[in-house]
Amino acid sequence: MKTIGVFDSGFGGLTVLRELLQLIPDARYVYLGDTARLPYGSKSRKTIARYAVSSARFLADQGADLLVIACNTATALALDDIRAAVPVPIVGVVEPGAHAALTAAIASSAGTGGSRVIVLATSATTQSGAYTRALNALGLRSVEKACPLLVPLVEEGWLHSDVHTSVTLEVLRIYLLEALEQAPAANILLLGCTHYPLLKPLIETTLKNLHHPMQIIDSAEATASAVAALAMDSGPGAIVMPDRVFYATDSIEKFQRLGSAFLRQPLPPVKLVDLGG
Amino acid sequence: MKTIGVFDSGFGGLTVLRELLQLIPDARYVYLGDTARLPYGSKSRKTIARYAVSSARFLADQGADLLVIACNTATALALDDIRAAVPVPIVGVVEPGAHAALTAAIASSAGTGGSRVIVLATSATTQSGAYTRALNALGLRSVEKACPLLVPLVEEGWLHSDVHTSVTLEVLRIYLLEALEQAPAANILLLGCTHYPLLKPLIETTLKNLHHPMQIIDSAEATASAVAALAMDSGPGAIVMPDRVFYATDSIEKFQRLGSAFLRQPLPPVKLVDLGG
Repeated sequence: MKTIGVFDSGFGGLTVLRELLQLIPDARYVYLGDTARLPYGSKSRKTIARYAVSSARFLADQGADLLVIACNTATALALDDIRAAVPVPIVGVVEPGAHAALTAAIASSAGTGGSRVIVLATSATTQSGAYTRALNALGLRSVEKACPLLVPLVEEGWLHSDVHTSVTLEVLRIYLLEALEQAPAANILLLGCTHYPLLKPLIETTLKNLHHPMQIIDSAEATASAVAALAMDSGPGAIVMPDRVFYATDSIEKFQRLGSAFLRQPLPPVKLVDLGG
Repeated sequence: MKTIGVFDSGFGGLTVLRELLQLIPDARYVYLGDTARLPYGSKSRKTIARYAVSSARFLADQGADLLVIACNTATALALDDIRAAVPVPIVGVVEPGAHAALTAAIASSAGTGGSRVIVLATSATTQSGAYTRALNALGLRSVEKACPLLVPLVEEGWLHSDVHTSVTLEVLRIYLLEALEQAPAANILLLGCTHYPLLKPLIETTLKNLHHPMQIIDSAEATASAVAALAMDSGPGAIVMPDRVFYATDSIEKFQRLGSAFLRQPLPPVKLVDLGG
């Protein structure tokens, strides 16, 4: 039986874990949220790589024989560093996300040639250009838009009451209008941050208000499929009761509270770990 | 000549340094922004204390013989830990801020008995109750309001163009209305985070729109005065060319760029330091 390590800077990776639990329910999972050092999206490549490598090493030390980098920023800026440091198969979210966009483009009336992808992501992710490279390699044209206020809005839960939602809708309207200025015919919207799927209903409302329908995709499901393909390679293992272990580097109470919204199920007790710093 | 160490989780402490440079221009200054581990305001007491203590130790190692904790969150949650770890005089921003509120209350028509203070701060600061304790000790009644979205809005610079400012004004309106519900007769607004002075014009606009005038105070100037009183104790030292050294734990380019907005003057080259983690 595989032990799958899932890493994110915080809670967002739980949306990827949720898909993994459905697709590969009998694996053992170790999740790490590096909550003491988040957010990654506003930091430099060097610092992100240092944090991501130490986090990946921790998961390998916990017995992970397959690693999922369920954080777009860590994938975009540190995938090569992590691969060099940790000798287990590693799946990031950028390649699967790009492939999900390709699938959407093929299915669309515009086709791959006529499709245009807008990628919403953190500042660090957009600056890396990782999504543009991955999408261009698949023959898709794209525009990346940094949306640094979306993570704080999700973390503060400004998604529910009318008064708070109006602010989040206005921020989304500003970001989407700025992106559409660069790509007026865009038909695919790729959510390049694991926090953003929680905004999906509000993004749909915003696109409707802008009279600009787009297909919204995120990389969680596509990433889980990529992991399943790798995990199945080794064949079925012994049937034992699988377990799921959750670590965070800060405030396990907050992790417990916010985490279940991302995972959409209750979390077992979260363990605190000190990765230094 | 004193070497004054100034510590903040990021750039906000530069507003305190700005006041210090005016009041004690002939001191040597070493500034540290712990940008690799910011923000502190959303993290746990234990993690904040660990970060703040290692940062204070770094400044003491750089020769600081007086430390200014120019970060409300670090002061509110870790002042005792820092004092126990670093054997030099230490000035935080909470006590001076509370005294500035007292001065405002005495000067107001309501007097100290009739005055009521609203403190805007980070989640961690408000949860600590440090401002309430400091204000109550001076005979002032207060309400603390957590405003976690204000730091991201300031860091993104959503303070200038009309379209961005409208979002920041709406967020301020929501926070201030929620605070005024708890303290309808409040007449003093204490900015309990070093990022917030940059929002002062927008806060004034919001209060005007709400038809609720308040006296806005921040702790930067009062903190500088408290430091000056301590720094002068040792008498004038040798007259040498004073220098200012700036360290950051992440992305010195970003520090250089954002920092001058807080300091309101150009910064010398910022040095990168690795505090582990």
